[in-house]
Amino acid sequence: MYPKLHKILFLDDDVVVQKDLTALWKIDMDGKNEDRTLWKLGTLPAGLTFHSTTKSLDKSWHVLGLGINPSISMEEINKAAVIHFSGDMKPWLDIAINGERMAEQSPKLTRIGLAGLAVMGQNLALNIAEKGFPISVYNRTTSKVDETIERAKAEGNLPVFGFHDPESFVQSIQKPRVIIMLVKAGAPVDQTIKTLSAYMEKGDCIIDGGNEWYENTERREKAMAELGLLYLGMGVSGGEEGARNGPSMMPGGSVEAYKYIEDIVLKVAAQVPDSGPCVTYIGKGGSGNFVKMIHNGIEYGDMQLIAEAYDVLKSVGKLSNEELKKVFSEWNKGELQSFLIEITADIFGIKDDKGDGYLVDKVLDKTGMKGTGKWTVQQAAELSIAAPTIEASLDSRFLSGLKEERTEAAKVFKSGGFGDILTDQVVDKEKLIDDVRKALYASKICSYAQGMNLIRAKSVEKGWDLKLGELARIWKGGCIIRAIFLDRIKKAYDRNPDLANLLVDPEFATEIIERQSAWRRVVSLAINAGISTPGMSASLAYFDTYRRGRLPANLVQAQRDYFGAHTYERVDMPGSFHTEWFKLAKRLIIKSCLVIYINKVQGVDIEVSKSSVARSKMADDIGILCKEVKELKELVQESSKKWIDLLKNLPRA
Amino acid sequence: MYPKLHKILFLDDDVVVQKDLTALWKIDMDGKNEDRTLWKLGTLPAGLTFHSTTKSLDKSWHVLGLGINPSISMEEINKAAVIHFSGDMKPWLDIAINGERMAEQSPKLTRIGLAGLAVMGQNLALNIAEKGFPISVYNRTTSKVDETIERAKAEGNLPVFGFHDPESFVQSIQKPRVIIMLVKAGAPVDQTIKTLSAYMEKGDCIIDGGNEWYENTERREKAMAELGLLYLGMGVSGGEEGARNGPSMMPGGSVEAYKYIEDIVLKVAAQVPDSGPCVTYIGKGGSGNFVKMIHNGIEYGDMQLIAEAYDVLKSVGKLSNEELKKVFSEWNKGELQSFLIEITADIFGIKDDKGDGYLVDKVLDKTGMKGTGKWTVQQAAELSIAAPTIEASLDSRFLSGLKEERTEAAKVFKSGGFGDILTDQVVDKEKLIDDVRKALYASKICSYAQGMNLIRAKSVEKGWDLKLGELARIWKGGCIIRAIFLDRIKKAYDRNPDLANLLVDPEFATEIIERQSAWRRVVSLAINAGISTPGMSASLAYFDTYRRGRLPANLVQAQRDYFGAHTYERVDMPGSFHTEWFKLAKRLIIKSCLVIYINKVQGVDIEVSKSSVARSKMADDIGILCKEVKELKELVQESSKKWIDLLKNLPRA
Repeated sequence: MYPKLHKILFLDDDVVVQKDLTALWKIDMDGKNEDRTLWKLGTLPAGLTFHSTTKSLDKSWHVLGLGINPSISMEEINKAAVIHFSGDMKPWLDIAINGERMAEQSPKLTRIGLAGLAVMGQNLALNIAEKGFPISVYNRTTSKVDETIERAKAEGNLPVFGFHDPESFVQSIQKPRVIIMLVKAGAPVDQTIKTLSAYMEKGDCIIDGGNEWYENTERREKAMAELGLLYLGMGVSGGEEGARNGPSMMPGGSVEAYKYIEDIVLKVAAQVPDSGPCVTYIGKGGSGNFVKMIHNGIEYGDMQLIAEAYDVLKSVGKLSNEELKKVFSEWNKGELQSFLIEITADIFGIKDDKGDGYLVDKVLDKTGMKGTGKWTVQQAAELSIAAPTIEASLDSRFLSGLKEERTEAAKVFKSGGFGDILTDQVVDKEKLIDDVRKALYASKICSYAQGMNLIRAKSVEKGWDLKLGELARIWKGGCIIRAIFLDRIKKAYDRNPDLANLLVDPEFATEIIERQSAWRRVVSLAINAGISTPGMSASLAYFDTYRRGRLPANLVQAQRDYFGAHTYERVDMPGSFHTEWFKLAKRLIIKSCLVIYINKVQGVDIEVSKSSVARSKMADDIGILCKEVKELKELVQESSKKWIDLLKNLPRA
Repeated sequence: MYPKLHKILFLDDDVVVQKDLTALWKIDMDGKNEDRTLWKLGTLPAGLTFHSTTKSLDKSWHVLGLGINPSISMEEINKAAVIHFSGDMKPWLDIAINGERMAEQSPKLTRIGLAGLAVMGQNLALNIAEKGFPISVYNRTTSKVDETIERAKAEGNLPVFGFHDPESFVQSIQKPRVIIMLVKAGAPVDQTIKTLSAYMEKGDCIIDGGNEWYENTERREKAMAELGLLYLGMGVSGGEEGARNGPSMMPGGSVEAYKYIEDIVLKVAAQVPDSGPCVTYIGKGGSGNFVKMIHNGIEYGDMQLIAEAYDVLKSVGKLSNEELKKVFSEWNKGELQSFLIEITADIFGIKDDKGDGYLVDKVLDKTGMKGTGKWTVQQAAELSIAAPTIEASLDSRFLSGLKEERTEAAKVFKSGGFGDILTDQVVDKEKLIDDVRKALYASKICSYAQGMNLIRAKSVEKGWDLKLGELARIWKGGCIIRAIFLDRIKKAYDRNPDLANLLVDPEFATEIIERQSAWRRVVSLAINAGISTPGMSASLAYFDTYRRGRLPANLVQAQRDYFGAHTYERVDMPGSFHTEWFKLAKRLIIKSCLVIYINKVQGVDIEVSKSSVARSKMADDIGILCKEVKELKELVQESSKKWIDLLKNLPRA
């Protein structure tokens, strides 16, 4: 093309020149390259290999790197004089593809990154992009990256940029970099952190958006801090739909890191009229994960209580699916208005596409679960907080899993004349529906009281200073437990931030008093029909335990002092007391024996009990006491001889 | 006395010669000692100081050691040529005091050691000694050692040997040495192991007799194995009294170590006629601690159920303490016969020594607890085993602890017209007592079923191969939950070692069927009276859940699939399914809208609902769906223009 030129330096549009090329130009080609192109750049560091081809100029300088040869570090690449981004490794490729829109914005770097592109991750990334924040995405299985990019195009050419290797992914984000991970809790999170942090720099931040155990988050936060990286554990609730359209978000950890993302999460979170975006900085350490965990525990409770309401209405009230749909739709207009009631109504309306009837009746009664419900129950035990409704919900899931055992058990009891439903009670349907609604609502108050108290106990233990009312606020939208009811909880804590228990908030107390008769009727009805309502009855027992000034726990404590000398307190004076219950009780028996004996020698033959077992047992008791010679002497000081005779004459075990 | 003798070597009866004394004899006294006694032994190592007195021969050789000067090691003492055991440091002193008995045996070394002399430790040591096994005892606070020795003398000159320093304690035990620790779980156990193991040798064995977390035992077993030491974690139940007179013992860990102590524990454990000593080798690792932990969980359940029975009888049945004593005494003759029922009867008989009335009424209703109940509940969650009765018991303890909050709550609800007991129902006392007995028994079966299933689940997880029937056997005596009832459990597992649940054992099933009406009556009665029976109602719900082939868990699983795509199984075909519930449900709504629209344009004004809220909500739902253009197109393919008009005309939220 240019026969008169001795030397040509061709720079194609995918070549990046990073240094002064004078040295390159001065290289004597010495006819070694027939098409007069520089074939070698001797100043490149090891690991970067240039090669020439005789065919075309644009391929003659070629860096193996950036995703093709992952052993080359950014440092080495930065040192290189010339980089040719081969094939689809060009970082600007996605921007170019997105066309005019990106041409307008053409951000060199994205605002945030997201790693882990299962459905939740994809949806959250699309949500963030839709709110105007260009986002880089990455997934170990790269097909998920392409899938996400496809969706971003389909759902409105959203500014989502996909990367097939972690390094270019990290490098594509503006500093300080923020990357949200949405991968499986546990080891995959550690693995992802390891992969990403290798390319991150001081001041960058990693956010775990999964349902992680809060202590793992605290461990990682410390480890990251050693690398100069910030860390957040951010619970995200709302399922797939929430992630896409506005979830409830519970970020906890570094407050500095929260500031990096505040503008994003405020827009991305669900927006609730009159109460704002469903996100707030939760607190230090693992508080974000912890709060999300309790949210899920409460969710278990809600779902179980709804299932019980369904069971009573269906099994005792004989409501059809159509009637159930109507009932739940109606309920969703009142005090119970919530996402879970709404979807329950929806569910009853869906016909089976594989056969006759409604789909809900074809679903196997076996419930799956992940870790958060379990953790909530374990934390309740750890924190000495009663959480019977949540425990009953977890247990019900466990028992639902034993489908085969239950089928066998049903047979065993059926053969004992024991049907599934024990009595066919005639009920007033309308009255029953009303009662069940009230029972469900009252039980729900108990369940939320437990969850809130769990959060407070942990907050005190960890010094997190969590605001219960604010948590109720950010749960009002976006998340699975979103409900009109949460507004009442927020108001209760607004009235009294130190409220000991939701049950004693004046409004909730009034609501419970209004509903308690119905509540008792429903649970009693269920008990008599053999329909278990573990969640509702546990809630009722919780209420009836909490509201009573005096419990039978005095007996338990007396027993503990009896056999273990654990001591007890008294109702009428301060201090810690121990009583020798055993000795006192056995002394009473000895006295009785003496009376018998005296009666005997006086010719009156009275037996303390007709049972020879009881008499023999008494002798045993005395036998034990024989060791306590001193005390015996005291007792029988006036009649020691008679006493010994008595012992001789009493039957031995 | 012997004026003609030039040199005298006097060896008193508390002097031990350990080496050839020729050198000593040859020492030139040179008139340095007026009473011609050797005054100095130059060959002794540093740290051993001999001194002479001019007064008496028998005190002229004096070793400061063995408990007086703990800085002298056994090694140094062993090197000494002559040892004089000063004062009461003579190791044979106790034997001598014990007289003829010990003269027969005169063991140079004891059979076993015990470290940690709180009441449990003292009592177990005395028990072991009483069964004919000389025992060395040690405690960090040495006054406890002296206290134990005092008791050993007082309780029959038992062969208990006390040591004030760990080294001589360890050295006093025959090889292979076995030492039982009875110290507080956690760090004190680690500390004690550290102290003792320093002086122990390969093949020796340490046994932790406390309520330790099983994983700690497994960790220690591994650490000990590295030192060549064996390790056992042995649960000991029975409280103080059991430890002294025969506990139930649950040793787990090294089977070799168990063989070292088998002869001892078989004699020391409680002896039950027809079923032998209450001890058996439980299994590997931490199985002994784990089984003891579940035992305690069951104990929590038993105590709570008894407290509830008491509450119903007292609060609804208006029984006096005397009547309660009579009822529990009667119950103790039948199916409920057990240690806990027995002591409950005892408790009701004890008068207050600080005022009028009965002591039980003065005991504060605030229950303490240690770790095992909590661990049981946490393990239940971990193992996916429903344990509602045990959970209810733990929760009741937690709530009992909130005495001040409860008192406040009672006030709040009282001001709402809500008394402690809601209805003063007229009840037939005898009938109520009979019903409560049956409810208690049936609830107890559920509680034990939970405990046994917990053990089995862990056994499967850990490969411990635990024998449930054998565990029921060793709980028949000695321990806190000892009861005639355990014999029935043993027989149930004898009949079928793979029994899925005690509830479906033919005998228990029959017993429950016979009692279920009474059980339901008691729980209903309590609910209507506002008396919480969390344990009994949780047990009943457990039964009614387990015995039902079909639960409402289908709804829960449908909900999970709705919001989280968790999939579900079907009742009528295998496989895992996912339904787009949301889209299907919203499609239904869209169809309804189309119908309305069509009706509208046809001039027929039918509203799907009178509520404008519902209409507005519908519009929102449609708004969400607008994004799903493809599907909308499908749906409205025949009337897309009409559809768009409809959307425009529908009110917005």
